[in-house]
Amino acid sequence: MALLYKLDTKKSLKNKKDFSKLKILVNKDLIKVNNLIKRRLSDDIPLIELISKHVFNAGGKRIRPMLCLASAKLCDYSDKNIIELAACVEFIHTATLLHDDVIDNSKKRRGLSTAHEIWGNKSSVLVGDFLLSKSFELMVGVEQTQVLKLLSQTASTLIKGEISQLLSNNDISITEDNYLEVIKAKTSKLFATSCEVSALIANKPKIFSNALNSYGMNLGMTFQMIDDLLDYKSIENYTGKKLGNDFSEGKVTLPIILAYHRGNINERKFWIKTIKNNEQKKGDFEKACSYLQKRNILNDIFERAKHYGNIARDALEIFPKKKEKKILLELIDLTLNRNF
Amino acid sequence: MALLYKLDTKKSLKNKKDFSKLKILVNKDLIKVNNLIKRRLSDDIPLIELISKHVFNAGGKRIRPMLCLASAKLCDYSDKNIIELAACVEFIHTATLLHDDVIDNSKKRRGLSTAHEIWGNKSSVLVGDFLLSKSFELMVGVEQTQVLKLLSQTASTLIKGEISQLLSNNDISITEDNYLEVIKAKTSKLFATSCEVSALIANKPKIFSNALNSYGMNLGMTFQMIDDLLDYKSIENYTGKKLGNDFSEGKVTLPIILAYHRGNINERKFWIKTIKNNEQKKGDFEKACSYLQKRNILNDIFERAKHYGNIARDALEIFPKKKEKKILLELIDLTLNRNF
Repeated sequence: MALLYKLDTKKSLKNKKDFSKLKILVNKDLIKVNNLIKRRLSDDIPLIELISKHVFNAGGKRIRPMLCLASAKLCDYSDKNIIELAACVEFIHTATLLHDDVIDNSKKRRGLSTAHEIWGNKSSVLVGDFLLSKSFELMVGVEQTQVLKLLSQTASTLIKGEISQLLSNNDISITEDNYLEVIKAKTSKLFATSCEVSALIANKPKIFSNALNSYGMNLGMTFQMIDDLLDYKSIENYTGKKLGNDFSEGKVTLPIILAYHRGNINERKFWIKTIKNNEQKKGDFEKACSYLQKRNILNDIFERAKHYGNIARDALEIFPKKKEKKILLELIDLTLNRNF
Repeated sequence: MALLYKLDTKKSLKNKKDFSKLKILVNKDLIKVNNLIKRRLSDDIPLIELISKHVFNAGGKRIRPMLCLASAKLCDYSDKNIIELAACVEFIHTATLLHDDVIDNSKKRRGLSTAHEIWGNKSSVLVGDFLLSKSFELMVGVEQTQVLKLLSQTASTLIKGEISQLLSNNDISITEDNYLEVIKAKTSKLFATSCEVSALIANKPKIFSNALNSYGMNLGMTFQMIDDLLDYKSIENYTGKKLGNDFSEGKVTLPIILAYHRGNINERKFWIKTIKNNEQKKGDFEKACSYLQKRNILNDIFERAKHYGNIARDALEIFPKKKEKKILLELIDLTLNRNF
């Protein structure tokens, strides 16, 4: 009952491999980005290097820098500035990951123990600050005001999104609109910026930077909605994310919002007890999953996510036919259908 | 026994009033800075505004923005950019205050409950991030690469200083040199930058920006050394800082380092027990103070602090005779002799 869609690992791996078209496209630059990240993390304080490297390695997919690099290629831009920008967005992302784990008290991320589990909260808070400040050092290296304004404003928005999410924990009264606003701020904005900065640094006309912003924003919506859905159907051993994490933390994501609104009196009582009052007992997660299935919620969320994917697809249409465009378009479907 | 130098409140107030020469000098601009801070903290998420305003109000002396404004006057610079820069350094400082209180688990700051005591760790971590990101938005508004590089690098240094300090907690083996490195990074660097940015934005020759950096750096050393000394002699009701905070947290500041090195076998055993092993019982703080007195440590730290004050004084000599210079020079003695 717990796993609504029991995925076999082979299929997941196949999907992961599919993502690699994007990786192959940007691979040469991505190696440079990883090297730059490594260089920037070298520090005379060994603990900083240790924690930072741990969280960068656990960080995983590098989707944001890959988006940045692919967008630059789409804009025919290949100056070395793009390496710094791609590293910068990954620094911002990683800094917030570190603080996220502190906030959520998570013990694992992608199968690895979290930094705060190994080194404690205090170090994680400060090294997160350090990474955030390093992201600013990186962006300052790129001397373009528009880019700097966008990136610094994105960091604020992202953090505001995290705060909104924290405030909505255990709050069963939030609407789907509230949820959409939160994920737009905490996830989609950085996706959008990762794409848009490439057009800005390439000095492309506004119609292209707007298009890349819209593509990234809507891809980000798709990405986060699928992420929240996967928390109720992914495979622990593969993703390293414990199934039901959001549930046990009382995070009010879209599955919960829809389930509460669609539920009958008994179901609502269940959601109030488990999410609002945080009273969870053994078997409750399985029960939650059964309600989601009963109300056809995961399928409907998939449809909702597809809606944003469609907007992302149209946003890119302004660009001429190119290999990079094709790969970015395919990425929408891969994001939708991913199991990891 | 606890208070080695029992200060009467009137004398402290007189000292506080003396600081106000600087305040009077920059008052018109400082009001603008405070208004800018207030505007930047207005937010559609009420909790962000609430916590930020609380910590800004508890922040107190505004010494960093005042240094920035006074340095600008010394450089005959009065463009509105200086207001943004002064607000920026206060944002950086305030963000780290918020995270400091989380790290130290402090309950009070300057007589007010700390944000993390009222709203909890999670909110304090995220609102600290928010303030840090806002400081970057502010500095980006000032479109001068040199200024941006200095400020972003200062934020990194400051956070590295905090990490070094965290790592040296309960470590009785650190030397006076280690201590000086830590306070240089966590305190003096932002003092130095607050002064130096004014010369940079004013496009003054390097000799003046270097001089202001040196003045701020050494004033910062004096400031922090006196701060650490006051933890063993200040008056709770006046400073709002609980006497012996550093001691109970096992912070290895200069008083402890000197006391351990100068102590006999029994005294060293006491420091190992109370600081390294964190085994403290009632009366231990008074005992610590008696050892500091016995080894003449507070007086000697005062002399050490004076040494940096002297360097700060000479650094300013390059500037022509001016009211602003006089006030900045007086500030050195006020910092040395402050009881708050």
